[in-house]
Amino acid sequence: MALIVHKYGGTSMGSTDRIRNVAKRVAKWVRAGHQMVVVPSAMSGETNRLLGLAKELSPASVTAEVNRELDMIAATGEQVSVGLLAIALQAEGVQAVSYTGWQVPVSTDSSHTKARIESIDDKRVRADLAAGKVVVIAGFQGIDANDNITTLGRGGSDTSAVAIAAAMKADECLIYTDVDGVYTTDPRIVPEARRLHTISFEEMLEMASLGSKILQIRSVEFAGKYKVPLRVLSSFTPWDIDINEEAKSGTLISFEEDENMEQAVVSGIAFNRDEAKVTLLGVPDKPGIAFQILGPVAEANIDIDVIIQNVSHDGKTDFSFTVHRNDYARTMELLQSTVGPATNAGKVVGDAKICKVSIVGIGMRSHVGVASKMFRALSEEGINIQMISTSEIKTSVVIDEKYMELAVRALHKAFDLDQDAVAA
Amino acid sequence: MALIVHKYGGTSMGSTDRIRNVAKRVAKWVRAGHQMVVVPSAMSGETNRLLGLAKELSPASVTAEVNRELDMIAATGEQVSVGLLAIALQAEGVQAVSYTGWQVPVSTDSSHTKARIESIDDKRVRADLAAGKVVVIAGFQGIDANDNITTLGRGGSDTSAVAIAAAMKADECLIYTDVDGVYTTDPRIVPEARRLHTISFEEMLEMASLGSKILQIRSVEFAGKYKVPLRVLSSFTPWDIDINEEAKSGTLISFEEDENMEQAVVSGIAFNRDEAKVTLLGVPDKPGIAFQILGPVAEANIDIDVIIQNVSHDGKTDFSFTVHRNDYARTMELLQSTVGPATNAGKVVGDAKICKVSIVGIGMRSHVGVASKMFRALSEEGINIQMISTSEIKTSVVIDEKYMELAVRALHKAFDLDQDAVAA
Repeated sequence: MALIVHKYGGTSMGSTDRIRNVAKRVAKWVRAGHQMVVVPSAMSGETNRLLGLAKELSPASVTAEVNRELDMIAATGEQVSVGLLAIALQAEGVQAVSYTGWQVPVSTDSSHTKARIESIDDKRVRADLAAGKVVVIAGFQGIDANDNITTLGRGGSDTSAVAIAAAMKADECLIYTDVDGVYTTDPRIVPEARRLHTISFEEMLEMASLGSKILQIRSVEFAGKYKVPLRVLSSFTPWDIDINEEAKSGTLISFEEDENMEQAVVSGIAFNRDEAKVTLLGVPDKPGIAFQILGPVAEANIDIDVIIQNVSHDGKTDFSFTVHRNDYARTMELLQSTVGPATNAGKVVGDAKICKVSIVGIGMRSHVGVASKMFRALSEEGINIQMISTSEIKTSVVIDEKYMELAVRALHKAFDLDQDAVAA
Repeated sequence: MALIVHKYGGTSMGSTDRIRNVAKRVAKWVRAGHQMVVVPSAMSGETNRLLGLAKELSPASVTAEVNRELDMIAATGEQVSVGLLAIALQAEGVQAVSYTGWQVPVSTDSSHTKARIESIDDKRVRADLAAGKVVVIAGFQGIDANDNITTLGRGGSDTSAVAIAAAMKADECLIYTDVDGVYTTDPRIVPEARRLHTISFEEMLEMASLGSKILQIRSVEFAGKYKVPLRVLSSFTPWDIDINEEAKSGTLISFEEDENMEQAVVSGIAFNRDEAKVTLLGVPDKPGIAFQILGPVAEANIDIDVIIQNVSHDGKTDFSFTVHRNDYARTMELLQSTVGPATNAGKVVGDAKICKVSIVGIGMRSHVGVASKMFRALSEEGINIQMISTSEIKTSVVIDEKYMELAVRALHKAFDLDQDAVAA
């Protein structure tokens, strides 16, 4: 008997028929002797519907008071889901009880619409499990120290599920979603993309942060921090497939670098076209210049990703960084009106038509020549690299957006990702 | 400065435009210097939508566990409403904060789907009011001693509003709805029906329990018990009508029999066609026979309304009672299979095509001949009376359903209800 946490996304909960299928699948796991905690998302479309209503009524400026009410409203989507799923489980002859975030309670800070989980009290849940019940817990939400309802941001149900699995020391956390695992890259771009049987949580972290939409990045951080074995698998397999087969399907995100782990140098290719690049040309190269440029940007609450400063030339240098494309206009305005003049920059230029392509792999730690192999592959396709950024287990390049698919395909091939490295 | 509770029904909250109108109306009351607590219902249609989803998934038998989940699901309708209304108020430049039932908290017993309020802690609400905020509280819901979400049953938001007004000793509780007050009878049946400026809570109790759908009966009981001045008024007047005019509109349900109260002997005509009549013919007239008949009915959880036992004849009597029409088939089955044989009844007969028509008036206490005037009016129309039931302030008759409208019109006229008894 193991303690298992299942998480089901909005698509899996999208209709009463689908909820019934989720109930049948969970019931199968119960009958196999497992203690089950289930964390569903809101029915697909529901969160958007609720926030759409709120947006129609909101004042022009979104204050902390407005955000508190947005959480009040959005949290109901998951509350409906847990009630419906508990009833569907009861209809399957399985004892089940549902809880909201505050009922568990899942304690968070007070950052409405993007709260962070601080602690989870599992006493009530444990008592129900001991009494033979399935416990269905609303994802995406918690309660702050003043009894206000909070939410964890988009995709927050993943984080809820992993945090609950961590708090309860669950044997595994299974994230059921509309894809059947983590791929070497997006199969819509590279048809030869291959599902990974295993990926290290560090690689998953890079893949998630680089634009792979499978898991909320914070859920992966949580899984790594608390060593929760995490599996991403499809909720579209028939509910009655063999449980042993199901338990091995999808992709395991492992915190252990065990021998079975696929030993490819590069595990996957991630990409992201949500960024834009800005450059201050001819900035005087003196101490403190980076802070002088980026301080005001951070103060304006603009997130910065890649930063590049070239060596100086005649006492001047070019300083580039990327921001989210939604912040591009605001960033350019800020640089042109304030930061540029203040730093005596020669000129401010920008480009929103860029993309970032990254190779990710734990093997890069111990292999040399990986980055240069990447650059050669791109060069062979005539793709100019505009910026380069590296970390221990990834190398990212910023290139012209129009070369994105070509670059991803070329890198996928160059690193032999279409070949199954090890047997499942 | 007064402390005022507003309650808005589902129709008044039916769209973002209507919610914006509610916010503008409440803002007007705030600007007039009042402390405001607002209790909205779920957006119209929402509770039915949610319970419809639940019904599709429910097991055949509705257990306490299912009811707990139904409350979990249904309570979200009001939670969305309070968040939306708080945001709309903020957009009007009014400070506002919303609370669910559990956040107040509104403590109830554990009877899921029909819980009763036990106590309300007004500390948090008072602090917000003192800080100049409008407090928006979710109606229809509460929390039991084990932190489960409970709901108060259909129309429960009325009860929430009155209970909150009682707990906070509010100066008045205004129930905004889709009718503009309490009428002498249903204007769809009697076009001459007149809106009452005032009605005693006892009369309102009879009107409500007899099928007038304006207020949940428990809210009227609460208002009477805690002496909460209650006003029913229209939410369809323009939000910017003069506040003094608005404050005097609708119908005041008063717990004081003051001099301004309309002194008509009969205040209104109520009717109800949701009942059915069953009769055991030729039952041996012996002690305990009523319990022998009605005990099994009560045990089957069937509510009984009017009960008639005629004087006996040759040691036998006829025993009749009415039940809700939805329970008619089940009651007939029970009498024919079990109760009839057990009591040696001669025969079981029933009739679902009946209706109950009642005259209600506090003046009946001190006036004789009111009932006979009623019977004469019906007799003049050739309407046969099948059963009669009386209380201190009402007289009800059961008649053939097809005469209902005729009876209501005749009684409305006989008691001069189309004449305005006193000036407003």
